[in-house]
Amino acid sequence: MSAIDDFETYRRKMNERILSTHHKGITRFFNLDAAAYREGALSEKTKELLGLVASTVLRCNDCITYHIIQCRDLGVTREEFYDALNVALVVGGSITIPHLRHAFQVLDEMVP
Amino acid sequence: MSAIDDFETYRRKMNERILSTHHKGITRFFNLDAAAYREGALSEKTKELLGLVASTVLRCNDCITYHIIQCRDLGVTREEFYDALNVALVVGGSITIPHLRHAFQVLDEMVP
Amino acid sequence: MSAIDDFETYRRKMNERILSTHHKGITRFFNLDAAAYREGALSEKTKELLGLVASTVLRCNDCITYHIIQCRDLGVTREEFYDALNVALVVGGSITIPHLRHAFQVLDEMVP
Amino acid sequence: MSAIDDFETYRRKMNERILSTHHKGITRFFNLDAAAYREGALSEKTKELLGLVASTVLRCNDCITYHIIQCRDLGVTREEFYDALNVALVVGGSITIPHLRHAFQVLDEMVP
Amino acid sequence: MSAIDDFETYRRKMNERILSTHHKGITRFFNLDAAAYREGALSEKTKELLGLVASTVLRCNDCITYHIIQCRDLGVTREEFYDALNVALVVGGSITIPHLRHAFQVLDEMVP
Amino acid sequence: MSAIDDFETYRRKMNERILSTHHKGITRFFNLDAAAYREGALSEKTKELLGLVASTVLRCNDCITYHIIQCRDLGVTREEFYDALNVALVVGGSITIPHLRHAFQVLDEMVP
Repeated sequence: MSAIDDFETYRRKMNERILSTHHKGITRFFNLDAAAYREGALSEKTKELLGLVASTVLRCNDCITYHIIQCRDLGVTREEFYDALNVALVVGGSITIPHLRHAFQVLDEMVP
Repeated sequence: MSAIDDFETYRRKMNERILSTHHKGITRFFNLDAAAYREGALSEKTKELLGLVASTVLRCNDCITYHIIQCRDLGVTREEFYDALNVALVVGGSITIPHLRHAFQVLDEMVP
Repeated sequence: MSAIDDFETYRRKMNERILSTHHKGITRFFNLDAAAYREGALSEKTKELLGLVASTVLRCNDCITYHIIQCRDLGVTREEFYDALNVALVVGGSITIPHLRHAFQVLDEMVP
Repeated sequence: MSAIDDFETYRRKMNERILSTHHKGITRFFNLDAAAYREGALSEKTKELLGLVASTVLRCNDCITYHIIQCRDLGVTREEFYDALNVALVVGGSITIPHLRHAFQVLDEMVP
Repeated sequence: MSAIDDFETYRRKMNERILSTHHKGITRFFNLDAAAYREGALSEKTKELLGLVASTVLRCNDCITYHIIQCRDLGVTREEFYDALNVALVVGGSITIPHLRHAFQVLDEMVP
Repeated sequence: MSAIDDFETYRRKMNERILSTHHKGITRFFNLDAAAYREGALSEKTKELLGLVASTVLRCNDCITYHIIQCRDLGVTREEFYDALNVALVVGGSITIPHLRHAFQVLDEMVP
């Protein structure tokens, strides 16, 4: 699981670095971002799946890794992951396939 | 509700026109697209919300209109729409705001 | 100047409609968006030019119209507009040309 | 064929307006753009098909209209158009479908 | 030629992994993707060039590598590659230049 | 500062390689690209900030590295960088955050 660990360490370190500037706009954006995935009219699980599909069609591997971890922690099953990734594949086209490969690599590295 | 009606009429007419060519690749893509939103490991409702958020971050008004109609038919509530659109806004940024305006216009034109 | 007036009226009306839902995430995003262009380490004028170029390479006509109006109110000259749009054209490629046409149409409709 | 005529008139008028500024960078870009599609190692026809597919996956209707006209003038057949659009659809995904509808509308408006 | 070999090994391994899930939608998409580049109204060579340009303007290095290999196997010459990449550069702008560098690196690693 | 040095060495080497083909269109594009950032109605500093924000919303790490170096050479301060990156973050959304992390890493590697 070291690639995921490396990503999480890097992500945490750099986010702390960014927030250490105390730039008001950036700080508020990070808070807003965290808040968007909290339980509301939609469940956390649904929101994280929305984040995963948005990340896949926009083709951002780091964002895909992050949302797969969040989804896993909220109990998303393998079959649910595949269905969500399939929606992203159909909407986003074959240009998303390298990101599908990335997603599967992350899924397979994770403790099930 | 005429703007939505116009869209649906145009969409149906042009899709029929496209399929009338019997191009094998295009026909199969359209079938695949329809199949991606059918009940599976994830519910139709969740899948349509995934389609709506993907359409919003990719900034396609016609796709937004289409998925709002599908979501409405599957019982998505106003508060659920707002939560999904908020995820899209945070992921996709202020560049999605014109599409948020479009989404609200469609929501307000629809029979509740 | 009616096309610009129409845009401003529609934009104001729909933004009010969106904010009338009092969705906390969306409201905070709109505030954050407005704050990003306020005088800081960079001048308002520079920030609005950044907004204009970002809007052009991301190919959003409504965003282009909005930032041109803001730039004009802050005294951006014709030659400055052309230089900024040229950077956007070179970065974003010929796919931005239809948006360059839109930008020129807005520039020519504005009171100089 | 009036929608295509309107587009061509508007495009010509606005391009002339843009070039009337004599901005050196913009002028050179327009020349460069025209030159890219001239006969070279690849034929004009192949280059225009490349332009059409690039325009479709980047989802620019005006660019699609323009390259369809150019392709038609170079003798691209209906079946060749469909094959090219199918590549764009598979690469770019269902988000390109509204642009496929636009492409078919332009194709059907053109003198065959 | 090891970077290309590594890519091909990884690509094959991960595609097999993805297909091993037997997800119906994903499997059908992969078949559709392969079919889009088969000889039809347009030649395989033209279709692979379309795939290369689409991949470049959408800025996907793995997709660029893949289509360059396919083009090479179909006899695309150096000058034809340059002409196709130039169309992509003009359409997609300077933001594609890092991908142009990638494309040239792949071209130079390949057996001519 | 070795990551930046490596990037600059690779960038220079590959650009020379690309230009060594003497492809007329590509050569002219590279000249046009360099010219777009020269002092004109807008200062070099403003133009490089435009390039940085365009690169960030289009999510190109190599382009971000390049424009940060240029901005630094023109005396852009830390606070000005943060303000520009904040505009990019708000316009482009959370999908740009991995590129914000990259930008901060480059900023911290540079001689102040």
